[in-house]
Amino acid sequence: MSPEQFRQYGHELVDWVADYWATLPGRRVRPDDAPGTVAGKLPATAPVAGDGLTGLVDDLDAIIAPGLTHWQHPRFFGYFPANTSGPSVLGDLVAAGLGTQGMLWATGPACTEVETVMLDWLADLLDLPGKFRSHATGGGVIQDSASSATLVATLAALHRASGGDWRTHGTRRRYTVYTSTEGHSSIEKAVRLAGIGDAGLRLIEVDDHTLAMNPDRLRERIAADLADGAVPALVVATVGTTSTTAVDPLPAIGEITREYGLWLHVDAAYAGAAAVCPELRHGHAGLEHADSYCFDPHKWLLTGFDCDAFWVADRAELIQALSVLPEYLRNAATDSDAVIDYRDWQVPLGRRFRALKLWFVLRWYGRDGLRAHIRSHVALARDFADLVRADPRFEIVAPSPYALVVFRLRGGAADDGDARNAALLDRLNAAGEVFLSHTRVRGRYALRVAVGSPQTTAVDVAAAWDAIRAAADGVCA
Amino acid sequence: MSPEQFRQYGHELVDWVADYWATLPGRRVRPDDAPGTVAGKLPATAPVAGDGLTGLVDDLDAIIAPGLTHWQHPRFFGYFPANTSGPSVLGDLVAAGLGTQGMLWATGPACTEVETVMLDWLADLLDLPGKFRSHATGGGVIQDSASSATLVATLAALHRASGGDWRTHGTRRRYTVYTSTEGHSSIEKAVRLAGIGDAGLRLIEVDDHTLAMNPDRLRERIAADLADGAVPALVVATVGTTSTTAVDPLPAIGEITREYGLWLHVDAAYAGAAAVCPELRHGHAGLEHADSYCFDPHKWLLTGFDCDAFWVADRAELIQALSVLPEYLRNAATDSDAVIDYRDWQVPLGRRFRALKLWFVLRWYGRDGLRAHIRSHVALARDFADLVRADPRFEIVAPSPYALVVFRLRGGAADDGDARNAALLDRLNAAGEVFLSHTRVRGRYALRVAVGSPQTTAVDVAAAWDAIRAAADGVCA
Ligand SMILES: Cc1ncc(COP(=O)(O)O)c(C=O)c1O
Ligand SMILES: Cc1ncc(COP(=O)(O)O)c(C=O)c1O
Repeated sequence: MSPEQFRQYGHELVDWVADYWATLPGRRVRPDDAPGTVAGKLPATAPVAGDGLTGLVDDLDAIIAPGLTHWQHPRFFGYFPANTSGPSVLGDLVAAGLGTQGMLWATGPACTEVETVMLDWLADLLDLPGKFRSHATGGGVIQDSASSATLVATLAALHRASGGDWRTHGTRRRYTVYTSTEGHSSIEKAVRLAGIGDAGLRLIEVDDHTLAMNPDRLRERIAADLADGAVPALVVATVGTTSTTAVDPLPAIGEITREYGLWLHVDAAYAGAAAVCPELRHGHAGLEHADSYCFDPHKWLLTGFDCDAFWVADRAELIQALSVLPEYLRNAATDSDAVIDYRDWQVPLGRRFRALKLWFVLRWYGRDGLRAHIRSHVALARDFADLVRADPRFEIVAPSPYALVVFRLRGGAADDGDARNAALLDRLNAAGEVFLSHTRVRGRYALRVAVGSPQTTAVDVAAAWDAIRAAADGVCA
Repeated sequence: MSPEQFRQYGHELVDWVADYWATLPGRRVRPDDAPGTVAGKLPATAPVAGDGLTGLVDDLDAIIAPGLTHWQHPRFFGYFPANTSGPSVLGDLVAAGLGTQGMLWATGPACTEVETVMLDWLADLLDLPGKFRSHATGGGVIQDSASSATLVATLAALHRASGGDWRTHGTRRRYTVYTSTEGHSSIEKAVRLAGIGDAGLRLIEVDDHTLAMNPDRLRERIAADLADGAVPALVVATVGTTSTTAVDPLPAIGEITREYGLWLHVDAAYAGAAAVCPELRHGHAGLEHADSYCFDPHKWLLTGFDCDAFWVADRAELIQALSVLPEYLRNAATDSDAVIDYRDWQVPLGRRFRALKLWFVLRWYGRDGLRAHIRSHVALARDFADLVRADPRFEIVAPSPYALVVFRLRGGAADDGDARNAALLDRLNAAGEVFLSHTRVRGRYALRVAVGSPQTTAVDVAAAWDAIRAAADGVCA
């Protein structure tokens, strides 16, 4: 592809993206097509000769865009947001063009150093404890996802709990890991992948009202496991659980992990972003107890997937756990100990220049712009909760400290009520005007409205409420 | 950022990338700056108010570009290539703009289906065994890296070797994993992360001439481990080792893994791309024995990092090993069993739309364009090897089946010779006109020239040889 062709296509596709964003409000949030629809529109094999990307833009319009669930849609309220922004896309564009591979400092000094600085910027914006900064004992790194951050924390915890023996002999002892019954599924996955096995995961009961981990139950369970000869290694506490954004009590949990010498990882995948606002930092009380912490700028901080920000309090421990140094990666900078080689902070070897999009986002919005972004969603969620509360058919089933509202149609025998709520969700999502997802709270089916798409305004929230009420009329009739 | 601003910056940055590529030949391949140089040019904290990206392009020119090792530089010959291309960057741009999150089919049908089709296209281009296709028992998926592919293969192998017990009880038995002494460091890392422990890794001796795994030694070691009560789980065979592109003998290894019921993973991270050319498929002989296979389009197939293509012969086994299904991810499509949820094929939960860049690349180049790309590098490497052979001061230390040449200055007592070769590399890389990396072959220090950057031509290879000869004059004087 000649430079001229690249410029021409590049400008055309930049415009296509801008048009895509502009046309989102008029699109179904989610397609209504059967599995195989998109695949059926593609040839069975690659072309023999290059096609010069002829028809590319038409194909994007005809095959790709209509086949997507639109996460950037102003009426996408499902799961947690995965919002992006203009500056993030631009940062990704430059990173892709540079095509640098930052596995070692030596293979991309700027890639490494911008990342270190950006993670320090973020630590400052969120007011994280000093030990997580790069000029202290800790430091931050970009992981692809909170799932990988939890896995890395699990490995470091095993390293510590085994006194280093895990590196050599693996998980042959009976290690245990603790999280609440509301902890994310990635914790179960990390425990399995690390070779502890599902039987080593302890799901600690939550407070019935707050849905936050009960620290007394945690302490009892650790003591029981110790008495039983197991090796407790890690507690994963959540700030903003996936179902309901419950906040585990870090001060009480932190005392327990200290007392027993367990690694404390704090998973704030979604809610961490809120800490850019001082008034939304309450969930971080007690964070000074944490050995590691993560949140996802790719969820609620306008930075496109993938970008999880992960910090450790003691980088030496992490590096000891994960490093492997073959001859072909040896170099003077690594030997000098004056640089960070981020490959030793993560599962894969190679790495893209993901810090660039973070730099663009933090510059474009600044601290105040990010605060305004978070606050607008929190306010919209509060307004939505008020609408729900004002309709006697509905109940809100969990506290809403951030921008997620969890609610359900009241009443009926348990099974009936669940079926009615499931029918409500199906009806809503089938219409395609909004997209919501669901969960179970205290065993009962409930709907989730997570406000967080970049274009969402009061108009969209009102439209969602209208759609929900109308669907409820249908379901309840 | 308004649509107009996005268009304006987008066009400007597309042009910046085109200019960056055009100016690469005139740049040092690698900076000569001390650690901290880039970080020192950045403010200590994020701006309070957004800065409108004022000065952005100047900063890219003054801070970022001069601080990078330029992997796309025509005289970058280090490691293995991580080449990208115009179409790949454009695909990444669109993927970033769509901002879709394809963890489930339901959260991005087109994201999932284009990926399945692209992996089928690639399987066809490389002429992989039929069982790896999605309409057979297997299927392909994009992993971020070959490291993660090896980890996933290790987990599936543990699942199989344990008869499913590993999911529940972890790696409490004494599992063993086999690769050659030339296997990539990511295998050691996967073995550690999976909880097997470094002591469970068996590095099998290689043939002294070919540097390929000796299958007799493999068989002996498996038998000895079995006799000793260990549980052999996995063999990782390499097609194109990192040091020298040696090719392990799959037919003989495959017979052994069949006989003992071990999982066979074939790591063709670099060399797999060469199989787009029929005359370069010899390394794949015996691939029908493999349970899984991967190669990196992000190395030598013009697709930007990250993009590893990973196939399994039996997708059910992989999914059983990795799946975890919480309530909030349940949906009708998943329950119908008619779709692929790629989150169950990988470590992390979330996923970008990486198949898009692959689609753009395969369309733009077509089968013939990719063949021409690979053949040009293979020819350039052959020419370079001829130059080395013609100079009596040098020797080539390993066969060159692809586009890597491994060589050294001859002679001298062992230690002296190594020091001279290391000095040669330092001198070369310090000058910044070319970049090479090194390895050890049969214990001796050697230099590697991997031809693979997209812009590399005969002129660059000749320039590299001139620089090497001149540096050798200096070192040998
Ligand atoms: C609390 C929590 N942790 C972890 C995750 C996983 O995030 P990721 O996709 O970054 O792995 C999520 C995703 O919703 C989450 O809500
Ligand atoms: C043979 C081999 N396997 C695996 C890898 C790791 O590749 P990745 O960076 O995709 O994890 C490499 C990298 O050079 C390699 O040469």
